[in-house]
Parts: sequence; C-alpha cells; structure tokens
Amino acid sequence: MILRIRGGQKPEIPVKEGQSILAALKEAEIYLTASCGGKGVCGKCKVKLLEGPAEITGFTKLSREERDSGIVLACRSFPKGDVGIEIPETSRIAVGEKIAVSRGGNLQGLVSAMGGEMDPAVRTAGLKLVPPAIGDNSSDLERLRAALEAAGVPPLDFPHDFIFLNGMGRVLRQADWDVDLHYAAGSAISLDPRSGSTGGRYGIAVDIGTTTVVVYLVDLSNGKLVEAGSTYNSQIRFGDDVITRIVHATERGGLSDLRQAVLEDINGLVGAISQRHALAPGSILTAVISGNTTMSHLFWGLDTASIREEPYVPGVSYFPVWRGGEAGLLLNPCGRVYTMPCMASYVGGDIVSGILASGMTRNGEIALFMDIGTNGEVAVGNDEWLITAACSAGPCFEGSGIRHGMRATEGAIESVRIKDGRVETGVVGGAPGPGAVPRGICGSGMIDAVSEMLLSGIIDRKGNFNHADGGGRLPESIAKRLRAGQEGDEFVLASGPAGQIALTQVDIENILRAKAAVYAGVSTLVKEVGLTLSDIEKVYIAGGFGNYLNVEKAVILGMLPDIPMEKYVFLGNTSITGAYLALVSEGFRREAEQIASRMTYMELSVSPGFMSEYMSALFLPHTDSSQFPTVEKLLAQKGASG
Amino acid sequence: MILRIRGGQKPEIPVKEGQSILAALKEAEIYLTASCGGKGVCGKCKVKLLEGPAEITGFTKLSREERDSGIVLACRSFPKGDVGIEIPETSRIAVGEKIAVSRGGNLQGLVSAMGGEMDPAVRTAGLKLVPPAIGDNSSDLERLRAALEAAGVPPLDFPHDFIFLNGMGRVLRQADWDVDLHYAAGSAISLDPRSGSTGGRYGIAVDIGTTTVVVYLVDLSNGKLVEAGSTYNSQIRFGDDVITRIVHATERGGLSDLRQAVLEDINGLVGAISQRHALAPGSILTAVISGNTTMSHLFWGLDTASIREEPYVPGVSYFPVWRGGEAGLLLNPCGRVYTMPCMASYVGGDIVSGILASGMTRNGEIALFMDIGTNGEVAVGNDEWLITAACSAGPCFEGSGIRHGMRATEGAIESVRIKDGRVETGVVGGAPGPGAVPRGICGSGMIDAVSEMLLSGIIDRKGNFNHADGGGRLPESIAKRLRAGQEGDEFVLASGPAGQIALTQVDIENILRAKAAVYAGVSTLVKEVGLTLSDIEKVYIAGGFGNYLNVEKAVILGMLPDIPMEKYVFLGNTSITGAYLALVSEGFRREAEQIASRMTYMELSVSPGFMSEYMSALFLPHTDSSQFPTVEKLLAQKGASG
Repeated sequence: MILRIRGGQKPEIPVKEGQSILAALKEAEIYLTASCGGKGVCGKCKVKLLEGPAEITGFTKLSREERDSGIVLACRSFPKGDVGIEIPETSRIAVGEKIAVSRGGNLQGLVSAMGGEMDPAVRTAGLKLVPPAIGDNSSDLERLRAALEAAGVPPLDFPHDFIFLNGMGRVLRQADWDVDLHYAAGSAISLDPRSGSTGGRYGIAVDIGTTTVVVYLVDLSNGKLVEAGSTYNSQIRFGDDVITRIVHATERGGLSDLRQAVLEDINGLVGAISQRHALAPGSILTAVISGNTTMSHLFWGLDTASIREEPYVPGVSYFPVWRGGEAGLLLNPCGRVYTMPCMASYVGGDIVSGILASGMTRNGEIALFMDIGTNGEVAVGNDEWLITAACSAGPCFEGSGIRHGMRATEGAIESVRIKDGRVETGVVGGAPGPGAVPRGICGSGMIDAVSEMLLSGIIDRKGNFNHADGGGRLPESIAKRLRAGQEGDEFVLASGPAGQIALTQVDIENILRAKAAVYAGVSTLVKEVGLTLSDIEKVYIAGGFGNYLNVEKAVILGMLPDIPMEKYVFLGNTSITGAYLALVSEGFRREAEQIASRMTYMELSVSPGFMSEYMSALFLPHTDSSQFPTVEKLLAQKGASG
Repeated sequence: MILRIRGGQKPEIPVKEGQSILAALKEAEIYLTASCGGKGVCGKCKVKLLEGPAEITGFTKLSREERDSGIVLACRSFPKGDVGIEIPETSRIAVGEKIAVSRGGNLQGLVSAMGGEMDPAVRTAGLKLVPPAIGDNSSDLERLRAALEAAGVPPLDFPHDFIFLNGMGRVLRQADWDVDLHYAAGSAISLDPRSGSTGGRYGIAVDIGTTTVVVYLVDLSNGKLVEAGSTYNSQIRFGDDVITRIVHATERGGLSDLRQAVLEDINGLVGAISQRHALAPGSILTAVISGNTTMSHLFWGLDTASIREEPYVPGVSYFPVWRGGEAGLLLNPCGRVYTMPCMASYVGGDIVSGILASGMTRNGEIALFMDIGTNGEVAVGNDEWLITAACSAGPCFEGSGIRHGMRATEGAIESVRIKDGRVETGVVGGAPGPGAVPRGICGSGMIDAVSEMLLSGIIDRKGNFNHADGGGRLPESIAKRLRAGQEGDEFVLASGPAGQIALTQVDIENILRAKAAVYAGVSTLVKEVGLTLSDIEKVYIAGGFGNYLNVEKAVILGMLPDIPMEKYVFLGNTSITGAYLALVSEGFRREAEQIASRMTYMELSVSPGFMSEYMSALFLPHTDSSQFPTVEKLLAQKGASG
C-alpha cells in the first residue's frame, strides 16, 4: 500500500498492512511530534486524512472542529488501502532547526575567575627520535617509547588504531623523526610532525539534554570557544521524556535507534563546525560528555532498564575514559572521551556539571541549585555537604502534555502579560506585539501565563477558572477569551496562523503538578537537612529555558521559593559550562569527581514527607501562605480571591 | 566480456578490457598459484586457452609442448573478447586443503618438563556483589569495582565492549550478583554467572607462517589441546614470499587484502573448531599470535614498507596487548591478543617462539637453532648470549621457483632414493612405490633428490649434470632419465598424471643457492662469536617441513653442518609450540620477552664475511671439504667425481 503525502519532500512512501501512519512515516524518516512515543496519549501527531480507507482507533485530545476537518492521530490511524494525507507544520519535528543557545559568554574569563588554569587532559610531548641505522634496527615503536622515557613521560598505552590508522611509520619518516605526540589518560592519541604547521589540538564539550544537544568546539591551546552549535536531540522522535525512551530502548533495536539518533545529532554539529573552520581530520583529540544518567547511558549504547526499576540503579556512574572510536564520535578514533559522572539514576552528569559551574561547593554559603529542564533536579549544600534529588517534574515545560505546548523556538509564546484588559505576548523570534506570529507556548510562557491569570483573577488558587463564581469581576475583553472546550474550560492567549492558542484546564493542572513537584523537591530537601528556606543564601537557576525565565512570575506560581530576588542567580545551560570546564582543565575534572563522590542522593519517591509537600504545593502559590509572604501581599493588593 | 571456465564451479565470470585472466579470476575469487604475485616470472599460473581472442605478452617457463597444447600464463594473457579456458588442477591453489600438522604431542607434558606451570594471562575472580537497594543505589559498575577491590584485584580497565556487549547489568541480575569475572593484562574481559555451568575459558595459539596457518584451541583451565587445525595462508594468492607480499601491501587496498586473507584463514579454523566442540560464544578469551615480522604486521594491518628498505626496521617489535575486537578475530571482543615479540625485520615472533620451545637459552650448552621455512632463520647461543640472523634462503623449499615444486601436501614427492639403477620416491598421502601418484616435489624431496643425484654421480659438485664428461658411468636406466629441456638439462624423477616430474638445471641452481644461504648464515654467525662448528653441542631443527626432513641428506647437500647426528634434534613447528607455551603460562611469556630482549641481530646482507661464505657453499657439499669430513668419506666410497 502507498501513503501519499501532499506537499512533502517525499510524495509517496510504502505502508504495510497493520502499520500505523506514524510508524510508516518514521520508517521513511519523516518524524512527527509524538511526545508519548506513539501511545495515543499526547494528541500531537496530527495529520489530515485526505483520501483512502483507514481504520481509526482513537481521537485523544482532538477537538470537534479538528475531527470534522479530517484531522486524525497518525499513531492511531491504520491504512487499509492507498491513503493520502497532509502533515500540518505544527506536527513536524523541527529537528535541525536553529535553537537559541548561549554562546558561552566569557568562558576563558570564567576559568580564571574560578581560579582554574588551562590544563586539558590532552598533553603534547615534543620528541626527537634517534633515526634507525644498520646495527641499530629496533622498531619504530621502540624508538618512540625510548624518546618518551627520555622526556620523562610515564609509559603509555598505544592503541591499535594509533599505530594502524595514524600510519605511525609514515608520519615518523615524513617528520624526519621529529614529532609531537599527543596523549591523554595514559594513552597515545596521535602523532604530528613537529616542524611545519600542525593541525592544532581541539576538544569538544557536549551537553546531551533530553530535548536539545549543545556542542562547544574548543581550542585546547588557549581554551577559546571556536564555535558553539546546538540542535534538537532527535531521540525526541521516540518520545519526549526519559521514561518513554527507556521503554523504547527495551524494544528490539530500540537502544541502537536511540544511540544512533543522538550520535548523528552530535556528529552533525561537530562535522559542520569542523568544516567551517577547516580543522584537520583527527585534530579533535578529546571530548567531554555531560548529560543526565539516561542520556549518558544511551549515548554509550548502554542498557537503561535498571534506571526505571526500583531501586533505580544505573549501569555506570563513574564512566571509564573510552575512545573516540568506541563512542562513534567524529573525533580522532584514539581520542579520549570523558563522561561527567552520573551520581544516581536521576541525578546525572548534567547536574554534576551544573554544580561545578555554579561554584556552590567552593565556600560555606548555603546554596540551592535548581536545574529545570525536561525533568527537574535540585541540590542543596556548600563546601561541606551536598544533597540532591530529582523532582519528576516531567517534560511539561518543554511543551509535552500541554495542548499548544512547544519548545522555546521560533513562534513560541515565551512571555505573557495581562494588564488593563489586554493580553500581551512575547513570541520567540518575532517582534513584540501584533507583528509576532505565535505557534504555541513554551515553558517560560506557561509560567508567565498562569501567574498572570492568577493575578488577574482569571483562575483561582486551585487553578480553576473563575467565571463560575467570580467571572463578573473580569473585564469583558478578558472574559470573552474564556470559553468552553473539549477538555473543560480554556483561556485564549493569542491567535496564530493555525488557530487560537489557549491554555486549557487540563494544561493548567499539568503545569501545577510540574511546579508542585519542583517546589516540593526543594522544600523536602531543605527540611531533610534541618534547614528552612530562609537559610538559603543563594539560588542558582539552570536549565535550557533559564534564559527566558521570569523569576518573579515563577515565585508567584509557587515554583520557586519566595526569598529575596537578589539571592537568585541565572546561569543558563550549566551542563555545557561544566563540560567546558572539565574539558579545559584536569583540575575541574577532579573537582567534578569530588562533587559526585560527595553528593548524597535522596530518593523523593520513597521519602515520607515528599507527598504531603507535593500536595500542599498543588495550590497557587501554596496552601501554606506563610511560605509566600511577598506573593500574598501582591495578591492582596490585586484583590484576587482565595 | 565473458571468461568461460570449463569444468569450474563458476562457469562464467566477467573480464574487463585490459585485465589479465589472472586478475579476472582473482576478482571472482578463483585463485591460481602465482608464486611471483603475477609478475610473469614464476610460470605457475598456467591455464589452457580453449577459444576466443587474447593478447599473450609472455611465455616464461612454458615448454614447447605446453605452448603447442594451448597453455598460457594467466597473468600474461589479456582477453580481447569472450574467451574460454580450462584450469589445470596443478595451477589451482589448494586453499582449505588439509595440511599434515603435528597434533602437538604431549603439550601438557612439555609444560611440566620445562618446569612451567599452568598460569594463563586470563585470570578469574569469583565475586559476590552487594545487591542494590533504595538508599544504596550506586551503579552496577561501582559494585563490581568494590567487589574486585575486596578480592584484592588491582583496578581494572573496563573496555566499552565489556559493558556494552556483555550486557553487564543483565548478567549481574541473572547471576543474582554472584559472578565470575575474567580479566587479563589489567583489563576486564567477560562476566559469567558463578552458579550453573559456565562456558569455560579457552584460548588460541596461532602460528602464521608465510605458507601455512596453524591454530591450537586450548582449554585454559588445564592446558589441554582441544583441537589443532591448519590451512594454507591464503595470502599466497598475492605471492609466495614475504617480499612479494610487502610489495603488494604498498598497492592500493593491498594491505587490507592481505590482512583480510589471513584473518579469514584463522577465523575459518577457529569457527570450525568452536562449532565442533560447541563452545559458548565469547568463551575464547585470549590469543597468542606467533609469526615472522612481516606476517605479524600484516595480521594487524600494519605498514610493512620499512621492513624491506634499508636499514630494515619494523614498525613494532614489542606489540601492545590489543583486543579481540581490534584484531578482528573470532574471539571475545574484549579478549586480549598477545603477539610474540619480533626482534628484527627478519627475525620475528616465530623464532622467539622457536627458541623458547627449544629451551636452548636455559643452560650453558652452546646450541644452534635453525628454522627452515619459507625463509630460513638461525640462532646460536646459550643461557648467556644469543645471536640470530636471517638467511634469505627464499621460498624454494616450499616449491617456489622450482619447475615442479610444490608444498608438502598430497602428491608431493617428499623423499627420493636412487639405488641400483632405480629411482624410488615417497609421495605424501600415497602408499610408497608405484601406487603413489606424484604431482610435484616438495622441499624434503628436493634435498633428498639433489644429495642422491650427487651420490649417484648424476650431478657433479657444482650441481651440473655429469653426462657431458662422466655420463658413461651411469647405469642406462638412470642415464635415460637425463634429457635436454628448455631450461637446459633435466632429470626425470617420476611420472605423474600431469606428466613427468623432473628437476632441471635451473631448479638445482635454485636449490644450491637456498642451501648455500642457510649454511653461510650458520657459519658466518658461528664465526662472528669466535667459535667453530665443532663447538656446537646441539642443533635444533624447526620448520614446517621438519617432519619429513632427512638430516643425513641435508648434510650431504651441505645445507646442515657435518656434525655428529646425535647432536641433531627435530622439533617440527616450534612457532606454534612457543605460542602454546606463552598462551598457557605467563612465565613462558616473560621468558619469550627476555629471549627477544637478549637477542643480538646480525644483518647478514651487510656482513663482510657472509658473501664469501655463501660463494663457498655454492658447491656440493662445500668448497672447503674439511668442513664435511663425513660427506667426503661417503663420496669417496661412492666414487663420485669432484
């Protein structure tokens, strides 16, 4: 059977008996948003059925209008003959789309500000070998070993690829026995002629986020960022969150799918940057990988099943230093790949990187570190102790489980202001105001919207729409944005090319659950160590959407604790910053390992206090109003009802 | 264009414009004997042209009768249209043919006789891990590391494949955290559940000869030889000797051809033996490779160019211990592959193995070690000193460069006796006498034949046929076997199905050159250390044809020194025996390294004395008759003329 796709790059693809449209598209490498991994739950993989017979087994989250206009869920539609479809732009995964990424700021300055120095794991020994002669005919490798010994370098391991792929003998002769040997972690990496221009020494820092992948290509001679690149983690095509991916990994070929997907993302970025800067092949000598525990395991192709089964144990926490060839990275095959230690199943290398980059373990100040990404991890501590937990906030702030949710890319509503009867939205990539073209709403937009809706009295402290009892108090321009939808009431934030963008009652409940998980994580952790929130002297906020986050609104929402604004510090993507630090200096690498070894992990899912903290936090801002004095004052001023 | 092959398994293969028949056959994986590698020199790649147009550019070594019957050299025949050929059985390479191989005798007995003990590099630690729990959720690998530390095992390297391919987490859980960890050379190899039947631990010893490949599969728990296998080294298809192969390796794709060829030979043997004994996959945990320096480099795919260029320096002499995966062997991918050290370009791991197996460096007795294979290496020494040299004898004793030369396989004349006017031949695989079907002559047959021809007065001491001056003294039955051939006179030894088998004047000259090189090597080496041949207390003879060699005849030929017979000891294939010893015991491995490090290599090609020694040895038995008193006495008795 044939699946015809109107307006696509591939006009016709095959589809098998019993295969869903989603599965057929995936086989043809056409990827749809499918946050739930194709389980018929998220309602995102919409396609328009134009012609032909198909069995439809579910309509979750589709509106009447959508159903009437022929929209179906690709994962729940099974062609029974040749079928024609159209794929709405909003259903396509924007893999390869440019993502806003911090260029890293003054990274070299950060190294010195933190008292570090350029000391990458890769070292170079300049060696002058004794050329062979009749009567002195020991092998090339013995000459190299002798020169290394004379230079005071401890014995190295010489990987097969070093001798085989480098063409060791050829290089030695071309270089007239005068070479630079690059090595790291006790192992030879490559050989360059010493005279003449060498290819340079480069390294890559890689942040593998559940949603995005960021690569820094760094000149190891001075720590300079040559270029940063980022893209979506194309594992998204197998599901939005780590759990869905772990489940996919247990399926036949699933682990390999997932590994290949993220490798291609990274290699795509590295290849493009290398080409742009005309880097010699093999001159990238090392890499540092930073990601959560599941991402780190999937990158290495390792089994993740035990991560989601009690007692939640990962396969590896301190990763051996493996080789570029083993990783499959576009790297010198003998290059050494370091992986940031993953302390527990849900506190990974990204958090170790973040804590390293924050510097919170370097002094006595009690600090709170929060990484709000696809999940949500928190840490509390100082130079003496450190306790961490994972909040299971879920990927809602990345757009998953939210009707019009999307990531913070072009067209995403990233800020919302409700004032004087008007709703103002800021849209990523667009001019503010009516010129912007909104396609959906991202995490920071959700936080803004819900807190503004609370302040304006559109919703009450339980997150329910107010029109039943207090609707009359709303200005008419606001009230008319409130309407009844399929999933209960909804509030229209803006109108876009594909229709109106609204937050539904279900969306708000999801956002409340996510923010409650984060806040409950923080408060449980703080209580666990016998402190109160007022003891916190610094709050470091990290995460992919840290760039856009309005902290005041997040406090009003009750996601962040109500403590003085001056204690908050934004750090943006600290996973990549920490990976950068570990790349340029062995000192930071050791510090990261010390951080990991000093961490105490608290499993919130079995903590007796967590559930009641969570329940209390399912309120705006919180059932215990004494915890949010500033917000209470504000609400009192606004006259919002309880 | 099409090449039709009568009676072959592939009746038709394509042939390109300008391509030789030899090249077309090679592309279709039909391999002909081509000792010279297809350079039009050896005259072995005969095919019969049946029909069709072809340009013939050379007829080297073809007889008038052969040319008249349509025989051409495949390497010198270029089809100009569709062509039909027939391939004589004698031109086909007998790859896969069963080779007579020593079953190793009492190998376990040898270990204890040499004072060694079972102590393979692969060790096994029985480990009981602490199972994970909520509150004790460190990773699988940390648990394994902790258990190893508790067991007193120094920190191991965990290769990526160990964790990835073994499915570490799955094995640990299936085994209920009670496992056997196998490791070697500081690196983890594999994990087995401790309870239940384990797959066992096996290793392979491999001798890569220029001509043959031998594999021993050994049970590492007791050193028992599970099975031995052998086959031709299919690198033969690219040329008979190491130099031809080194040249081929410099051509595009040549190195990879050569590596692949020998890997397939080894893996074919290992696969067949594993299957026959139902070995669990991955239970072969280690390998020891023994071969000459070129073979060892080609096995690892390493550049060999510098081996044949002054000052004759190999890439590697002490090989790092690489992994099964890097080798491409049918081995556990994390298994450790040890390569016997190659002391110099022309004294390789096979000689180190041989000296190890001979035990000659274990006492004060001055011994001579000779390995007469495709080349010819000699060593003199005892427990205090050791000097070695390579003789450049060439592959003539393997059949190369000899009109009817062949290897010691079925149909080869391996012994010759000329008595009472009759020529008696012993044929490999055949009953002695008229029932045998000779197809050619192998090395031991050549040695017998030439010495018998000398004793019978058929040839003189220069190797020239005697019929010109003294022919009248020969019995008529012998005299009529002497005839004029294309390459001068020749002597018919036997009649086979493909015609008469004769030694030509050119053949005899080649044999003389080979034996002279061996003898000159020995005498130069002995002189170099200030000794005479009478100081030699023991002579160890090794080599593929050691099984068939008649030492007395080899002394008459002047190849082996004329010293008392009781000083000679036959050892057969010592390359495989040494590899076996290094496989079963770390002690022997260390001893091999000591042997290699203690060896002094003498480059005969630049030694001033060697050329005159060689010239003197180009005589039967030698120009200096005082060096061969026994032979002189015998020749005087026989009345052979000088």
